[in-house]
Amino acid sequence: MAEHPTRYEQLADDMAQAIREGLLRPGDRLPSVRETCLRRGVSPATVFQAYGLLETRGLIEARPRSGFYVQAARRAPRAVPQAAVPKTEATEVAVSALAFDLLESTRDPAVVPLGSAFPGAHLFPIEVLARSGARAMRRLKPQQITSALTAGDDKLRQSLRRRYALQGIPLAADELVITNGAMEALNLCLQAVTQPGDVVVIESPTFYAALQVLERLKLRAVEVATDPAEGVDLDALAGVLARERVAACWLMPTFQNPLGALMPVARKQDLVALLARHGVPLIEDDVYGELYADVRRPPPAKAFDSDGLVLHCSSFSKCLAPGYRVGWAAAGRFARDVQRLKMMSSLATSIPPQLAIADYLLQGGYDRHLRRLREALAEEQLRVRRLIERHFPVRTRVTRPAGGYFLWLELPPDTDALALHHRAMAAGISTAPGVLFSADRRFTHHLRLNVGHPGDERIDAAIRTVGEVAGARR
Amino acid sequence: MAEHPTRYEQLADDMAQAIREGLLRPGDRLPSVRETCLRRGVSPATVFQAYGLLETRGLIEARPRSGFYVQAARRAPRAVPQAAVPKTEATEVAVSALAFDLLESTRDPAVVPLGSAFPGAHLFPIEVLARSGARAMRRLKPQQITSALTAGDDKLRQSLRRRYALQGIPLAADELVITNGAMEALNLCLQAVTQPGDVVVIESPTFYAALQVLERLKLRAVEVATDPAEGVDLDALAGVLARERVAACWLMPTFQNPLGALMPVARKQDLVALLARHGVPLIEDDVYGELYADVRRPPPAKAFDSDGLVLHCSSFSKCLAPGYRVGWAAAGRFARDVQRLKMMSSLATSIPPQLAIADYLLQGGYDRHLRRLREALAEEQLRVRRLIERHFPVRTRVTRPAGGYFLWLELPPDTDALALHHRAMAAGISTAPGVLFSADRRFTHHLRLNVGHPGDERIDAAIRTVGEVAGARR
Repeated sequence: MAEHPTRYEQLADDMAQAIREGLLRPGDRLPSVRETCLRRGVSPATVFQAYGLLETRGLIEARPRSGFYVQAARRAPRAVPQAAVPKTEATEVAVSALAFDLLESTRDPAVVPLGSAFPGAHLFPIEVLARSGARAMRRLKPQQITSALTAGDDKLRQSLRRRYALQGIPLAADELVITNGAMEALNLCLQAVTQPGDVVVIESPTFYAALQVLERLKLRAVEVATDPAEGVDLDALAGVLARERVAACWLMPTFQNPLGALMPVARKQDLVALLARHGVPLIEDDVYGELYADVRRPPPAKAFDSDGLVLHCSSFSKCLAPGYRVGWAAAGRFARDVQRLKMMSSLATSIPPQLAIADYLLQGGYDRHLRRLREALAEEQLRVRRLIERHFPVRTRVTRPAGGYFLWLELPPDTDALALHHRAMAAGISTAPGVLFSADRRFTHHLRLNVGHPGDERIDAAIRTVGEVAGARR
Repeated sequence: MAEHPTRYEQLADDMAQAIREGLLRPGDRLPSVRETCLRRGVSPATVFQAYGLLETRGLIEARPRSGFYVQAARRAPRAVPQAAVPKTEATEVAVSALAFDLLESTRDPAVVPLGSAFPGAHLFPIEVLARSGARAMRRLKPQQITSALTAGDDKLRQSLRRRYALQGIPLAADELVITNGAMEALNLCLQAVTQPGDVVVIESPTFYAALQVLERLKLRAVEVATDPAEGVDLDALAGVLARERVAACWLMPTFQNPLGALMPVARKQDLVALLARHGVPLIEDDVYGELYADVRRPPPAKAFDSDGLVLHCSSFSKCLAPGYRVGWAAAGRFARDVQRLKMMSSLATSIPPQLAIADYLLQGGYDRHLRRLREALAEEQLRVRRLIERHFPVRTRVTRPAGGYFLWLELPPDTDALALHHRAMAAGISTAPGVLFSADRRFTHHLRLNVGHPGDERIDAAIRTVGEVAGARR
């Protein structure tokens, strides 16, 4: 093929590619010459030349008075370069690229998912949910499709409000907006209370998506030290609030990602009171709240909010229905703004998964499922912590979170955890290196490990391998 | 209740509200005193006082050694003021508020939906889709949940690529990203090619959501005149491109909303060529492309794109599965950026609706459904146009779109279409007044009417009513 192909060569190459990739299959009729002229803006002569070229190459055949068809006995597909989709890593901070690669790696079932952000999908009642979805969809009245715009399905919101009420948190009737997972809820809440250029306080270390989202919304992050046991440092936070005009705090007071930190109740109250004095909204990411190892659900900061300043975000993705992308925001006095932003950014949340979950919740098995899930995660945490003690360098420090499914490891200070991550990936094991969790690459010898995959037989060997690699690096 | 209630009064009021609203139901056990202390950050004495107050009011009862329960024979619910969720209309342009109200009105099945943006839900194979969804969910392997992150389900993307290929448009393998409806696709594409403050060209009149989205992303809109028959004025567009640094064009070359304009093929080619000369990306909103009244699908501008500058956005919401919120972007050279932005804003699109549609497409009934849908919409357009001729003022001008399900009416110049809209709403009929479709309230005597509700027996009377009100206004 010439460097500058003619129009007909280009057309023939495009069709050939579609055939090679199986998009056009043996026996498929090609668009007519007239249609192709219209669609590609070329002359009939060009199309005839292109089709002639494809015939010569044996890819298509002409059938008299009928048109052109993909050759039944076409050659075996070859590996060919794809039309390039350029990468643009250079324009983004390294955290984004690394996080993106990490997410990509979780798509590969052959990789042991110690770096994944999700628990094992086998822990969830996927079949029961599917039955609930089928039942709910059979009963769907067409008008429900528009009535669920924009805030979400009424039954689902009613069930959620009931769960809040049983925790002693009464929500206003229109306070809940169902979102495309907690990620969208957090994005909408941030946009509701900030303008580009504003300062937002986050934890350090923090969930890497927070760094990406702030970057995307052109917000300035101030990281506040966060303790693996007690959560964000309130004195440090008070200092920031005194010094800077803070537009919002985005925190995870319950089972913080990556630390697993659980703020004691009194500190949550102090946090809410401190922010109320400054009139600063708190965006509370509570996606792990149901995954407690103790006997009862820790109250969210939202429970202590009497000013409508807490925007509480959560989802079913980590505790019931991964992949359903059903989350929500209970956004206090900002609820209407969040609903507007939802309309402008994705109009509404998909109805079938909402109906499936609403039906499932009414069947009454949710709390039983949660009990089993909590037990499985707590046991697995214990098990993996023992494995780490056995296989990792002696000076490794490990968190003991009271919920969630992450362990945060502080390796000996001379460990390069990013290099460790790359070596583990080469061995088919993903990890989440500490540099992911701060904009200024602070956690160089830290790792977050996912302990949410009980029953995955590859875990033991993977922990051993990562531990040995960590030991060898010193 | 005092103006500043004490802590226990506040707690009691909150619980009372939850009971009145049915969130706590007769016989439900209230959280224990200890739990409530923890959750609300109050002393046991406060909780006892609050529960005592609720007992006095007859709302709850104490059961010895068991706790407090919602009274079985509680008083009938009263209408009470809700905790206020403040409105913030004043901070937004009027178009947003009006659009929001209009969307809200479509939630009410009692309102005749002439202002709706959606066709009648009965036109869609909702039950067949539900069966497809149930089948696909039964077959779901847990690992599919993570493999569909972030770009979407592989089978669905493969089917979509095949449909593009059959139109003579070969897509790169990773070019498609499945989104939460076309609305999210458009948002992500805009963000991929613009920075706050940039100029974006839109049509005039334009889809009101475009105005909202640009406002949200702090982009500056330049409106270019658009002809009801031929689409955007290319000379005017060339003038803008010569004068201004334009970051992107956001256009609907096929069955434009609200005009229904279809750009002739040659003009689409000219458009793509013009933008390529200026290196300006085209965000092509093609959600109505399948709804043609003619014999074949008009090619999108994407068909003429050899530079990867056309970001083609569409969805199944208007032609197959309203409420499923399954859309996509084929974003050319910006595909990877769009995928990144998708990860940061909502991580991934819900899996069950994707699987349902993917299964449905493989069953082979889609094109048959589309043929029936097109026929129904074309017939209904004819029918309603006749009704308008009969019942509207004689100087009313009406478009004759070659697809989609909107009519654009230009009423006599002294008509106040916004007042007409409000009077129609008072009669239980929604319309979409022209001022919605421009930032500078240009279309004061225009209306967009939805003709996508064949079989709705209220349509005839509604058209007549709106026509009579329009006549009376002159």
